[in-house]
Amino acid sequence: MSVEEAFAKLCLSDAPADAVTVKSLVFKPKTPKSAVPVPIVVVALHTTTTPSPLIAQVASAKDPRLARDDLVKDIFKCDSAKNFTLAFLSNATSEFKLLIDNQLEAVEDATVLQLNDNLFITKAELFKFLSAFDQQSVDFSQEVKKEEPKKKQQAKKQESSKAVLDDAKLIGITVDKAKDFPGWYQQVLTKGEMLDYYDVSGCYILRPPSYAIWEFIQKFFDERIKKLGVQNAYFPMFVSSRVLEKEKDHVEGFAPEVAWVTRAGSSELEEPIAIRPTSETVMYPYYAKWIQSYRDLPLKLNQWNSVVRWEFKHPQPFLRTREFLWQEGHTAFLDQPEAEEEVLQILDFYGDIYKELLAVPVIKGKKTEKEKFAGGDYTTTVEGYIPQTGRGIQGGTSHHLGQNFSKMFNLTVENPKGPEFPKVYAYQNSWGLSTRTIGVMVMIHSDNKGLVFPPRVAQWQAVVIPVGITKKSSQEQREHIHASAKTIEDRLKQAGIRAFGDYNDNYTPGWKFSQYELKGVPIRIELGPKDIEQSHVTVVRRNDSRKYNVKLDELEQRIPEILDELHDDLYAKAKELYDAHRVIVNEWDEFVPNLNKKNVILSPWCGVMDCEEDIKESSAKKDDGEEIDVDEKSPSMGAKSLCIPFEQPELKEGQKCVKCDRPAINYTMFGRSY
Amino acid sequence: MSVEEAFAKLCLSDAPADAVTVKSLVFKPKTPKSAVPVPIVVVALHTTTTPSPLIAQVASAKDPRLARDDLVKDIFKCDSAKNFTLAFLSNATSEFKLLIDNQLEAVEDATVLQLNDNLFITKAELFKFLSAFDQQSVDFSQEVKKEEPKKKQQAKKQESSKAVLDDAKLIGITVDKAKDFPGWYQQVLTKGEMLDYYDVSGCYILRPPSYAIWEFIQKFFDERIKKLGVQNAYFPMFVSSRVLEKEKDHVEGFAPEVAWVTRAGSSELEEPIAIRPTSETVMYPYYAKWIQSYRDLPLKLNQWNSVVRWEFKHPQPFLRTREFLWQEGHTAFLDQPEAEEEVLQILDFYGDIYKELLAVPVIKGKKTEKEKFAGGDYTTTVEGYIPQTGRGIQGGTSHHLGQNFSKMFNLTVENPKGPEFPKVYAYQNSWGLSTRTIGVMVMIHSDNKGLVFPPRVAQWQAVVIPVGITKKSSQEQREHIHASAKTIEDRLKQAGIRAFGDYNDNYTPGWKFSQYELKGVPIRIELGPKDIEQSHVTVVRRNDSRKYNVKLDELEQRIPEILDELHDDLYAKAKELYDAHRVIVNEWDEFVPNLNKKNVILSPWCGVMDCEEDIKESSAKKDDGEEIDVDEKSPSMGAKSLCIPFEQPELKEGQKCVKCDRPAINYTMFGRSY
Repeated sequence: MSVEEAFAKLCLSDAPADAVTVKSLVFKPKTPKSAVPVPIVVVALHTTTTPSPLIAQVASAKDPRLARDDLVKDIFKCDSAKNFTLAFLSNATSEFKLLIDNQLEAVEDATVLQLNDNLFITKAELFKFLSAFDQQSVDFSQEVKKEEPKKKQQAKKQESSKAVLDDAKLIGITVDKAKDFPGWYQQVLTKGEMLDYYDVSGCYILRPPSYAIWEFIQKFFDERIKKLGVQNAYFPMFVSSRVLEKEKDHVEGFAPEVAWVTRAGSSELEEPIAIRPTSETVMYPYYAKWIQSYRDLPLKLNQWNSVVRWEFKHPQPFLRTREFLWQEGHTAFLDQPEAEEEVLQILDFYGDIYKELLAVPVIKGKKTEKEKFAGGDYTTTVEGYIPQTGRGIQGGTSHHLGQNFSKMFNLTVENPKGPEFPKVYAYQNSWGLSTRTIGVMVMIHSDNKGLVFPPRVAQWQAVVIPVGITKKSSQEQREHIHASAKTIEDRLKQAGIRAFGDYNDNYTPGWKFSQYELKGVPIRIELGPKDIEQSHVTVVRRNDSRKYNVKLDELEQRIPEILDELHDDLYAKAKELYDAHRVIVNEWDEFVPNLNKKNVILSPWCGVMDCEEDIKESSAKKDDGEEIDVDEKSPSMGAKSLCIPFEQPELKEGQKCVKCDRPAINYTMFGRSY
Repeated sequence: MSVEEAFAKLCLSDAPADAVTVKSLVFKPKTPKSAVPVPIVVVALHTTTTPSPLIAQVASAKDPRLARDDLVKDIFKCDSAKNFTLAFLSNATSEFKLLIDNQLEAVEDATVLQLNDNLFITKAELFKFLSAFDQQSVDFSQEVKKEEPKKKQQAKKQESSKAVLDDAKLIGITVDKAKDFPGWYQQVLTKGEMLDYYDVSGCYILRPPSYAIWEFIQKFFDERIKKLGVQNAYFPMFVSSRVLEKEKDHVEGFAPEVAWVTRAGSSELEEPIAIRPTSETVMYPYYAKWIQSYRDLPLKLNQWNSVVRWEFKHPQPFLRTREFLWQEGHTAFLDQPEAEEEVLQILDFYGDIYKELLAVPVIKGKKTEKEKFAGGDYTTTVEGYIPQTGRGIQGGTSHHLGQNFSKMFNLTVENPKGPEFPKVYAYQNSWGLSTRTIGVMVMIHSDNKGLVFPPRVAQWQAVVIPVGITKKSSQEQREHIHASAKTIEDRLKQAGIRAFGDYNDNYTPGWKFSQYELKGVPIRIELGPKDIEQSHVTVVRRNDSRKYNVKLDELEQRIPEILDELHDDLYAKAKELYDAHRVIVNEWDEFVPNLNKKNVILSPWCGVMDCEEDIKESSAKKDDGEEIDVDEKSPSMGAKSLCIPFEQPELKEGQKCVKCDRPAINYTMFGRSY
């Protein structure tokens, strides 16, 4: 008799209509390769939320995730995770943990529970069955405990060889960027007060320093597009399903991530309404209505808005969030060359945002057919690079849609040549840049002391701190230093520098230094008795602690110069790393080893989609449940094409594709990516 | 045997599980007092949407709305609209129209239809029953026809004495502001290209001229609040129900209008998630977390975002929309006086936006207990007035929340006096201003020629138009005029005036004049041969067609002056109207007659909530199905209190309340309102 059959005997043959649904889930914690995983089985009311971080906490397990078929097969002899029921507990070939929802324990013994489509059992019978196993009762409504500094300290002792910084102060960053990049990223954002985690998963709060960056980007970009004749507008965030689904290729890419409003107050809506994941299909029916003559072209609109893509993958602040801020430009032209010119103008603006504002190097290029925006003709992109993970990151895209959407939405004008000529479908572009920019910036510049803001997007560019005040200082001396510092603050503000002073006597200068280093203020200006004596200030750069003495009468001239130098140095350092890790690989043998060295790769390539898929598959690490990066889009983390760079190495005569036997048509940049 | 019983005989006694649900609705069209209403009965599949405008169109009925109990009683002898079924058709005491969903007609004869909880009938039986009545088959999936100019023209002939403008050009406004204000408002917005109606009801597209106004408002307000130390941030649009419902008083006001996301892609969410109707409960848990010491106070954040209130009342562009743009400021202070000072500073900024940008007069004051923001201590407001409808309109509110929310969210700091003193709950404010501002501006200034933009928020302030070019003009003359006009355009732009030129030879100057009048460009600058001869330009003001000659060498000085004068004149004219229609009424007898004269009323008032409700009820017109304004919040359109103005007429000794016998405590402004 199989365990299933044995278990079925405990069950009821009748299926009562009011049975309470119960779920049983198997989780697998992250486990070193050398060890056997100890799965965690959770038995809970269907209505109970069982968040993974809470399971991690109560089971003292690392990063538990839903188990895959292989584990369920190995340990419980059940053919697939999908078919797992509690019956299979009896099969267990090795240790497992059993967590039981205390809400479930609280229901009356006579209650009938539904385990799956066919299995109904009284609560009493089920608990009798479960009593054979070690178990733990869990209150799933409890909050996940935040890691306390104290706990961190303990953790530090236990795994001091790992990612924890040795001399980290409690208030500062306690995780090493080089050793635990995701942990560091989270700390630097939250402790630096840029961002906070939010009650709804995948959504984050952009605190003032983040939003200020977005405002600088807005101002920079908005001025430039307005000079091109683009106007801002605002279209609704809601889309009817009929409209959303008009362009099939296009919607296919978004459909699994669309959030649907189905209820308002206590009324069910007659028809569910989507929240825009992007606005092509929102806008273009109206473009078709408004554009009646070729004189109405070009039409160039942009909006600054938020869009929602309800991704089920591991969310990450700025990089993958369910709601994010962006701008989306949508333009329509009579002539294709004019449209195509704009695609590149916009891409240049995106490149400039990275280079001139964020001090982040990017590579411009064209996406492959596989990676382009679905429904468009082609996509151009700026691609960044994160050294710690060795992964590429798409930084902003400018699409030429050709006539695909205009044909779908009947966006036509009469032929300027005359009514006897056929109607002309407009040529369209769309282009977007999001708050992802901010995450890239943080990942690239910030360090183990905290945030590092490039000065042009820093909410505060300089902090003035009085120093050299001791217990022996007289009240007069103290006041003189404070007053002198205030004068400097005022002069800087007058000169258009975003400066502030910290004159709080309750904290030591050292404490303040750490504070503003954590928060990434680009330069600190120290003023003490010696500085005053010598008529200068001491300027310290956040990024590299480099010190300058700046004469008081050169303040207004030198500080902006120092800020610009700092910007340039940040950029140069990041570019050096990107350049060093962008390697030309002509032979497949060297491809994966180079990926594993955290490089992105320029390879001669045939341009064939099948080959691209082959490259991805062949460059994927095997999923042994260990080395997989949890926030990778593809679970196997093969290399994707990042772009076909505009700047091309010369292709040798007869050069073959790096992967297949076809002739190469260009160098394409590949990499693991966000 | 009652009709119900007779009908029941036609029905099935068994209730099959797969019955198709059918709805039967009774609508009442707007009917003159003198006439008997002809109700419209709609029989449709439950899944068919039966929009009122479409019913209006196919039944040639005016503004049909769901009938109330009295009508259903009178005509069908059914005790309430809720209990109405098709059985009652046999009772009809007078004429009615019967519309039948063609989708319902299309189902097979054997299909079982479910009419209500108990009534099941085959489709064949139902149609046999219905065949006794005149009926009309309707395709409810058809689009509601837009009013075509041609149809308008016909309508004009038929009801030339009514609202249609006599000499309106097809392209321009065809409805008289004074006679059909809602129709005029819709035309002026859509034909002026400020706004378009959208696929999802209650949502509208803000086209560039609207969004530009919002950008001017943003810039104006943002600069001012940043000087007060307010920082911008962005909180997620999603709220969990747990958090949303934390402050009960507060959420009660919003709950019926909250839109809920329940699905993402094809997955049901474990828990429905709300879209923020406002962000108090979104933000304050984090305020409580971030504020750890009194040194963290004040905390002043603002966000520019959109919020969603799924109102089921008649939507109106800008004034009542399901999604709207606004700013919401949320601040927390240690001391109440500091908080209260800010409330008024912000209110002043709101007043300035109306006066200095939109040229709209507002009255500042405090809301009554009944009308204040739920959950707060008190609400201050700027109140506008729409002369055509005689209704007040709330223009922006600044709330002092006291410690109500800080107690709810445990937003406390240690007492600055020392740990032996009790913890201090923060004092909070919140304040918001929305795109409603734009609707008020349009309603007040625009006219039968189209939009009138106050110059400081006009996307384009001046249009330069070459004139006096005839068939006889030589090519050289033509070119000279164009070149001179272009020079003027360039000089204006150089001087910071938002100017453009229209040099298209395909249109006559007259056509262009109408075009830019429709679009509301504040001034038109004409340049013809005579102007050139006399070294001047002719400037024509949009609002009153007043003409100026401006010498060419005074252009840069005079045009900004003219724009400022225009602004001042718009404001003065609107203020005159507001002042004339804000009347002091001490006796109840004069109250309703003054309301009916489209006034708002200043009356001595006792401050008692019951009395306010009494005033509202007693000032309501009776609902005889005729004079009710469809977009009124209260169906009976009684007078609400608008505010207790800060500027008070002197209260006489012993003055009694206008409505009751209690002593008056102040003058309160009452009015019908939006």
